[in-house]
Amino acid sequence: MISVAEARARILGSLSPVGAEVVPLPLGWGRVLAAPVAARTDKPAADVSAMDGYAVRAADCASVPVRLAVLGSAPAGHPFAGTIGAGEAVRIFTGSVLPEGADAVVIQEDTDLAERGEGAGQVEIRVAPAPGAHVRRRAGDFAAGTVLLAPPRRLSARDIGIAASAGHAWLTVRRRPRVAILSTGDEIALPGEPLPAGGVVSSNGFVLDAIVRAVGAEPVTLPIAPDDPEAIAEAVAAARGADLVVTSGGASVGQHDLIRPALAPLGLSLDFWRIAMRPGKPFMFGQVGGAALLGLPGNPVSATVCALLFLVPAIERLLGLPGDGPQTLRARSGAPLPANDHRADHLRAGLARDSDGILIATPAERQDSSQMAILAAADALILRPPHAPSLAAGEWVDVIPLGGRDI
Amino acid sequence: MISVAEARARILGSLSPVGAEVVPLPLGWGRVLAAPVAARTDKPAADVSAMDGYAVRAADCASVPVRLAVLGSAPAGHPFAGTIGAGEAVRIFTGSVLPEGADAVVIQEDTDLAERGEGAGQVEIRVAPAPGAHVRRRAGDFAAGTVLLAPPRRLSARDIGIAASAGHAWLTVRRRPRVAILSTGDEIALPGEPLPAGGVVSSNGFVLDAIVRAVGAEPVTLPIAPDDPEAIAEAVAAARGADLVVTSGGASVGQHDLIRPALAPLGLSLDFWRIAMRPGKPFMFGQVGGAALLGLPGNPVSATVCALLFLVPAIERLLGLPGDGPQTLRARSGAPLPANDHRADHLRAGLARDSDGILIATPAERQDSSQMAILAAADALILRPPHAPSLAAGEWVDVIPLGGRDI
Repeated sequence: MISVAEARARILGSLSPVGAEVVPLPLGWGRVLAAPVAARTDKPAADVSAMDGYAVRAADCASVPVRLAVLGSAPAGHPFAGTIGAGEAVRIFTGSVLPEGADAVVIQEDTDLAERGEGAGQVEIRVAPAPGAHVRRRAGDFAAGTVLLAPPRRLSARDIGIAASAGHAWLTVRRRPRVAILSTGDEIALPGEPLPAGGVVSSNGFVLDAIVRAVGAEPVTLPIAPDDPEAIAEAVAAARGADLVVTSGGASVGQHDLIRPALAPLGLSLDFWRIAMRPGKPFMFGQVGGAALLGLPGNPVSATVCALLFLVPAIERLLGLPGDGPQTLRARSGAPLPANDHRADHLRAGLARDSDGILIATPAERQDSSQMAILAAADALILRPPHAPSLAAGEWVDVIPLGGRDI
Repeated sequence: MISVAEARARILGSLSPVGAEVVPLPLGWGRVLAAPVAARTDKPAADVSAMDGYAVRAADCASVPVRLAVLGSAPAGHPFAGTIGAGEAVRIFTGSVLPEGADAVVIQEDTDLAERGEGAGQVEIRVAPAPGAHVRRRAGDFAAGTVLLAPPRRLSARDIGIAASAGHAWLTVRRRPRVAILSTGDEIALPGEPLPAGGVVSSNGFVLDAIVRAVGAEPVTLPIAPDDPEAIAEAVAAARGADLVVTSGGASVGQHDLIRPALAPLGLSLDFWRIAMRPGKPFMFGQVGGAALLGLPGNPVSATVCALLFLVPAIERLLGLPGDGPQTLRARSGAPLPANDHRADHLRAGLARDSDGILIATPAERQDSSQMAILAAADALILRPPHAPSLAAGEWVDVIPLGGRDI
């Protein structure tokens, strides 16, 4: 048996990033950047006001109160064309360019504008500003040429905003990898279609379809293949052009013997592994027709957990990301846990918080790997490393939170 | 000033869920369920084998080793048609229906099949099974009629799988709310377009577009409106049919005076609030033309934080979800924090882990709310409640993790 980490490393080692494509800025959201985004201008492009108020020369306001002549107004987008001289001020707004000659802004609340009568057109400054007060310096956010977003990086909403403000209408991102999904088995049928005797409704393919989209790839769901070598070979051959082929079912001991000869004519180079994990069953991995092939167990819980541990990282690697495997959080166990055997265990668990706000992960009573309802209701998987000693309720464990990316 | 919680409650109180639509199962992923999903059949639909091996009568195997006559084989999808009598067994596979008469499964590893010679067609059972061993009972996962997924619920990949296995090819979900996004200001231009003097590239609209999609709504990005009442009124009127109108910019003191009269002819009912939060500025909220209107600050960091605190919950409420506001995690502060004033503060921070795996949230040195680069690089916002006392490095704080849903 090999470890989860070794299995993942072998899969990642066989994969290379797909090519890039150009997308309009808004469609870059959630995609993986393939080329750096550098600032095209300084931001701000000039010294600007951080507040609504008056642009002044700080030296003029050293002794307050003082009255300054208001030369005009500079709303954002309408810079003041002249220069502020001694005893002069310009009405200014948040984001407005600081007029020539000014070196500080006095906020509106610290001023009085005389609109009529004696002193009309003058503003009284009541608080002395330091030089630079309420001024955002040119390039204070970023300078032209600065690389703001470096690949590989999955682009957040905030990243799209910064790419916009850096002047980019287009982004270069990895194209979506094509992932062919093949469900096999004489016993399965699509939901709503007639079920064969002793049959079950196909579900793994739908979970995989959603996971593939969640991670940023394009699923190609193949028709269900019966347990027949020719049909399986035909289905996989039809996936030509895919970057990755994922099968589910057909990974039990008996069915291995079906898939190996079925794919041999396609130039299959296939490994079967036993991975030291639970839930999990024999796992297929190999290369066929220029694509990597991941064979997941047919058991729904095993298939989903294997998809989290291996398929998600594989797609991430195709997108140029590290593919490190699921992030974990620290939580306290809500129940005592027995010592673990040699297989990494992934216990379906609920998450709650104690009165200090610390996460508490409580394993579901039943851990049967055929029970989808328990998996769907779980908030997390408690990670039990191989040979982990028993522990008491309240001790720290690592958990893989579920539900991220709506998985 | 009102609190963040009160502002959110007022917004949510004005919104009702949008209507439902039917989508094909795979397109239900990430959508919000609007009608319960109940199981159409028991799962499993019959007692089935949990392993590859032999279906037997446990009573026959009380004393081992014992030889049983193998009547045939029942691969998944091909149930055995006959009945197992005394001294008989049937070859069975994971997921196969347990034949009539059998009450236990002996796993393959505990058997020997004599394929030829004396005893050909017999299997030797080496380990005595308990009645029910390795049998998954009918309805052990779920029973027909059980509500597996109850609205409102955002559907995960696992949920799509369980809906499939419950026999559903279609799902009833909330339609995507239409959210009109309006950026205002004489100074802003779209990326790649000519900038006016003293202008800045529009970015908030792109952040909002991505956030709206991230939460499951459909953005309608309106053309940028200059600081002109007629143009603003025209833009908002064009948003008729939207469920929510979000503006950014135009929420500084001076610009309030622009938007209020601009929208009056459209039957505007508008509140301006000062919310006790930072970053944040005056906030608009009201009703216009049958839609709720959220006016976010123009400052990019303030706009994004306000979108997280108010826009995301508003969209969630339109989707029928609670809209509780961002989830928080507990972390230890990576730096001492000063006492807070009366405004809830949201410090841009990086996240790391200490040697125990505990999250450490370290505030960025600069917290200027105009600095998009710092916000884009942040992993979390440290939440400082109003009047929070100062605290030392290492003390616990609540953080809002960023990056979820690629926001």
